[in-house]
Amino acid sequence: MKIVAIGAHPDDIEFGCGGTLVKYIDKGAQVEFLVMTDGSRGGDARVRRREQARAAGVIGAARVHWGGYRDTLLPSVRHLIDRIESVLRKTHPDFIFVNDPDDTHQDHRQVARAAVSATRHSRNVLFYEGPTTVNFTPTVFIEIGDEIERKIEALQMHTSQVMKTRIEATPISEIATAAAHFRGVQSRVRLAEGFVPLRLFINIAGPPLIAPPPRRTRR
Amino acid sequence: MKIVAIGAHPDDIEFGCGGTLVKYIDKGAQVEFLVMTDGSRGGDARVRRREQARAAGVIGAARVHWGGYRDTLLPSVRHLIDRIESVLRKTHPDFIFVNDPDDTHQDHRQVARAAVSATRHSRNVLFYEGPTTVNFTPTVFIEIGDEIERKIEALQMHTSQVMKTRIEATPISEIATAAAHFRGVQSRVRLAEGFVPLRLFINIAGPPLIAPPPRRTRR
Amino acid sequence: MKIVAIGAHPDDIEFGCGGTLVKYIDKGAQVEFLVMTDGSRGGDARVRRREQARAAGVIGAARVHWGGYRDTLLPSVRHLIDRIESVLRKTHPDFIFVNDPDDTHQDHRQVARAAVSATRHSRNVLFYEGPTTVNFTPTVFIEIGDEIERKIEALQMHTSQVMKTRIEATPISEIATAAAHFRGVQSRVRLAEGFVPLRLFINIAGPPLIAPPPRRTRR
Amino acid sequence: MKIVAIGAHPDDIEFGCGGTLVKYIDKGAQVEFLVMTDGSRGGDARVRRREQARAAGVIGAARVHWGGYRDTLLPSVRHLIDRIESVLRKTHPDFIFVNDPDDTHQDHRQVARAAVSATRHSRNVLFYEGPTTVNFTPTVFIEIGDEIERKIEALQMHTSQVMKTRIEATPISEIATAAAHFRGVQSRVRLAEGFVPLRLFINIAGPPLIAPPPRRTRR
Amino acid sequence: MKIVAIGAHPDDIEFGCGGTLVKYIDKGAQVEFLVMTDGSRGGDARVRRREQARAAGVIGAARVHWGGYRDTLLPSVRHLIDRIESVLRKTHPDFIFVNDPDDTHQDHRQVARAAVSATRHSRNVLFYEGPTTVNFTPTVFIEIGDEIERKIEALQMHTSQVMKTRIEATPISEIATAAAHFRGVQSRVRLAEGFVPLRLFINIAGPPLIAPPPRRTRR
Amino acid sequence: MKIVAIGAHPDDIEFGCGGTLVKYIDKGAQVEFLVMTDGSRGGDARVRRREQARAAGVIGAARVHWGGYRDTLLPSVRHLIDRIESVLRKTHPDFIFVNDPDDTHQDHRQVARAAVSATRHSRNVLFYEGPTTVNFTPTVFIEIGDEIERKIEALQMHTSQVMKTRIEATPISEIATAAAHFRGVQSRVRLAEGFVPLRLFINIAGPPLIAPPPRRTRR
Repeated sequence: MKIVAIGAHPDDIEFGCGGTLVKYIDKGAQVEFLVMTDGSRGGDARVRRREQARAAGVIGAARVHWGGYRDTLLPSVRHLIDRIESVLRKTHPDFIFVNDPDDTHQDHRQVARAAVSATRHSRNVLFYEGPTTVNFTPTVFIEIGDEIERKIEALQMHTSQVMKTRIEATPISEIATAAAHFRGVQSRVRLAEGFVPLRLFINIAGPPLIAPPPRRTRR
Repeated sequence: MKIVAIGAHPDDIEFGCGGTLVKYIDKGAQVEFLVMTDGSRGGDARVRRREQARAAGVIGAARVHWGGYRDTLLPSVRHLIDRIESVLRKTHPDFIFVNDPDDTHQDHRQVARAAVSATRHSRNVLFYEGPTTVNFTPTVFIEIGDEIERKIEALQMHTSQVMKTRIEATPISEIATAAAHFRGVQSRVRLAEGFVPLRLFINIAGPPLIAPPPRRTRR
Repeated sequence: MKIVAIGAHPDDIEFGCGGTLVKYIDKGAQVEFLVMTDGSRGGDARVRRREQARAAGVIGAARVHWGGYRDTLLPSVRHLIDRIESVLRKTHPDFIFVNDPDDTHQDHRQVARAAVSATRHSRNVLFYEGPTTVNFTPTVFIEIGDEIERKIEALQMHTSQVMKTRIEATPISEIATAAAHFRGVQSRVRLAEGFVPLRLFINIAGPPLIAPPPRRTRR
Repeated sequence: MKIVAIGAHPDDIEFGCGGTLVKYIDKGAQVEFLVMTDGSRGGDARVRRREQARAAGVIGAARVHWGGYRDTLLPSVRHLIDRIESVLRKTHPDFIFVNDPDDTHQDHRQVARAAVSATRHSRNVLFYEGPTTVNFTPTVFIEIGDEIERKIEALQMHTSQVMKTRIEATPISEIATAAAHFRGVQSRVRLAEGFVPLRLFINIAGPPLIAPPPRRTRR
Repeated sequence: MKIVAIGAHPDDIEFGCGGTLVKYIDKGAQVEFLVMTDGSRGGDARVRRREQARAAGVIGAARVHWGGYRDTLLPSVRHLIDRIESVLRKTHPDFIFVNDPDDTHQDHRQVARAAVSATRHSRNVLFYEGPTTVNFTPTVFIEIGDEIERKIEALQMHTSQVMKTRIEATPISEIATAAAHFRGVQSRVRLAEGFVPLRLFINIAGPPLIAPPPRRTRR
Repeated sequence: MKIVAIGAHPDDIEFGCGGTLVKYIDKGAQVEFLVMTDGSRGGDARVRRREQARAAGVIGAARVHWGGYRDTLLPSVRHLIDRIESVLRKTHPDFIFVNDPDDTHQDHRQVARAAVSATRHSRNVLFYEGPTTVNFTPTVFIEIGDEIERKIEALQMHTSQVMKTRIEATPISEIATAAAHFRGVQSRVRLAEGFVPLRLFINIAGPPLIAPPPRRTRR
């Protein structure tokens, strides 16, 4: 099982599907990040790069690909599609996670739309949410009760961003926890991440595995 | 300013718009509740009635009307409309709050649909959410930072229901707080309640005017 | 893995998710049908009952529950919910499949709406389509290349209905095959069934199982 | 109370929310216009600038900002966002009105989308309609019975445009009046303007309070 | 060409598609009305019956069928479907017009839903709007510049209803005219009626007819 | 009757509305194609040009206009609009067919959006579907039982593309046939093409024509 998670900026992936990725990795999946911009509007690009590397490490990602674009200065959709396709060709992921296209942040919209095209022939593509997503009504869920801690820890690796939520006195960890509770209520579990499927194949093969894989030791 | 808040069951109103009602009451509005069923599927009807009375007291409601129906045994939509209209005729509310029609609980759907008809000639009608609402994408918000405590306190008056959330180890107060945080993030404040307007007039008159500005002379 | 498939009439289930059920059963899942009405508007009730039993046998279902209602004479939504809940309480299904609520046939709408309520606390609920569904835009798919034959065979057990499609010279098997091709194209496989999730948890545990279970011999 | 009204072309603002702006100004609000293009596809740019100045004067706007772009030659969304943000930073508006994003005119779409991003941290953002808007289903209304005359008068200041409606023998004033009647019917008043909220906070403070009610003591 | 126009109450049909029906009749079509209730909530049933007969006469309808139900006291959806089907079986219409299902009036919703089922096998079914319709975004239009007068005249035959619009000092004729202008603007003509298709076949056979049928003389 | 069919790539038009165009041409309509890109991503541009000419010949189109852009390298929306308008100004079509804007292929989205603007003052604009369209819920249909053969024949003229469907062992003709069956079922006929109207005027003039035009001989 291989997964590529695509984010417009550093920390988008962790917020949107960090718990889910932890869960997949704990089951043996290989996860790679593709972060399209350097996040330089929100802080120093080198700092953000370092933070992103650490956060990906906490999640357990095998690699971080960088799109190579500057924050809010994305090129044409065609270039974005090519960039995403170049990563997909190398990784052949079974699953792709990406920002939702309905968002007040223009970079999120552009990356999401490019991903819709780049993943045209992929089987499983799921949109995740962020603090600026609008009209997001998830129907697909993953329970993250055991993974929330690691998700929050990953978000906190983005030290320069933790308090930059634009909501007074509200760190990003608090927002992520509230979202997990909120999506949990909607899906009848304690904590969850919610997704909107562009296209999803149900995994019929599955549970219960005769023997569950040993739980990975937390760092 | 007069407000009628309509709920299918005891505690629907407090969860959906309790903070907003507290805020209105603090500004001098008069609020009345209309609770359509006795909540007897979730507990003893007499207990729930007492709890509802206490919760309404915490909110500061002037009165609780009872629809008189048994939980999950609502009559035809025509009867529901008549019942709601009979309360509206007495109170002439400026604002009406009611369950959202897109909900997995059939009583919520039926009460919401009846309210859509009964409020046909009302100016301001807003749908609120609950733990079983689906596809709810609010665009209208009220900040409840100063009111959240009283909202939670009111929810806790429904003692028999606090732990009946169907989500393991999650009291209703925790769900309500997570929702307030989540809707806060969407509206760029710390804590909020979100609404979907059926029909809403903007109050132009304006924020605390010491003295109304002189009317501009028309040319 | 236990599955309950709910249909308003005999043959709804086979058309909407027959291939998917075959696939699940081949992996060891236990499937039960709940057919709400006797289909007496489309033919003799006893004949249709017999046909339904045979078709369920072809699919491999463990049991057919009957709702006990007459075709187009469904009772109130409350009764429908109770009936569905009574089956769910006995079976505790992991997955539920049911007609889509947006349909020109009133029975489909009513059964779907009742199921939305009855499955309020279930984790996986998927809507399937039929020839009279409208505005159905599936995002969840299951590949049925190996199962299409058995699906068609099951549909043909409903001998009295095969030509009652209201489309000139078009047997139900042809319609089902066209639909499988059409949903296949949308999901990038040869043949598929498409679903709209009310609520779906991704099965992370998953593939690949060390040894796939032996393929059931076709009768 | 400060308001910024954004329009892609001269006369968009007057058509979409002219009556509302008059009403706000009559209550003491300060309104500024931001007109993104010079309207040179519809007439001489200098003429249109003069007409816009006069129309803004009739409405009572304090100032007209010009985006500085040529009609149908808008730059990238990033530039548009920056331009809008530069005005918002100076004015700090409480309310923002802007074209709706679902429109057959590409400039309207682009300005609306840029505004969605530029107003990301604003509390009150409302979309208004125009003759080429599609799928516009307003839920927020403002009664403009006393303001319609001034709205029409402002529209007529755009002398070069009055008959350029592309509808035979139908001046823009007639279209605006029909729209006001139509939105009035939907909101149960004689004449109204309708809006779709991107995000709206209800003004609870309320209609001309002679003296604010004493704050209730919390128990 | 045969048309059946279905309305929940007297005057619904004239308001929603009166101009269109006049136009069809002028081309030789045969139109029948089916008015489901007696309109007794809005006036004396016998008076309304007489008014409806006159209005249908102005339009040029060949016949008025009565559903036979009392205003706001519609029976179950099954009965409504049977009633509508009984008329359709007799008339075999090529086109069916009916109230839109998204409406604040419960009778409109119920009649529309029943019609969706009853017309399950019809080729052309169009929803029309009324003063209480919500979220109506028509994509199909008919120009009624030559027919508006007759439409208004027909509406005025409902003498008891003309001023019962619930909008101060606004007769139904004024509302209908504003709506025709508004839908005209959306469709780029002076006056139009707008429709939402449930299902519509384009008439390719078409224009221009070698010789247009003689224009019916206006009374 | 004049029709312009717009497609982003060679073969889009034939897939989306080939049967409909054949039908119109058989009734005497004049059809022109506007193919925006050279399709060079899917094959040699000169080959594709030749194939497109042949396919248009099979349909019976009077002319093929070429947008002149390279596949996936479309210019700004403004240039696209100008290009489309230049063709519309010459042809003055009564009907326009174009790709649907909700599609995973970026060229389809861009061409569709440009066409929405370029056809701003046209009366009849219909979106057609393709294998990568998403959320397409057609409400307007044309029966193509007599035209399907010619449609398939036209698709097969695109020899280089027939097997490039990205669906294993599935030629484009098979996909087109399945789609025609699927849309047929939805519209209650054997075979159909489905459309989403941006704006459509019903042709009231219509059937029956005194004498149908002579059927074109099939090659």
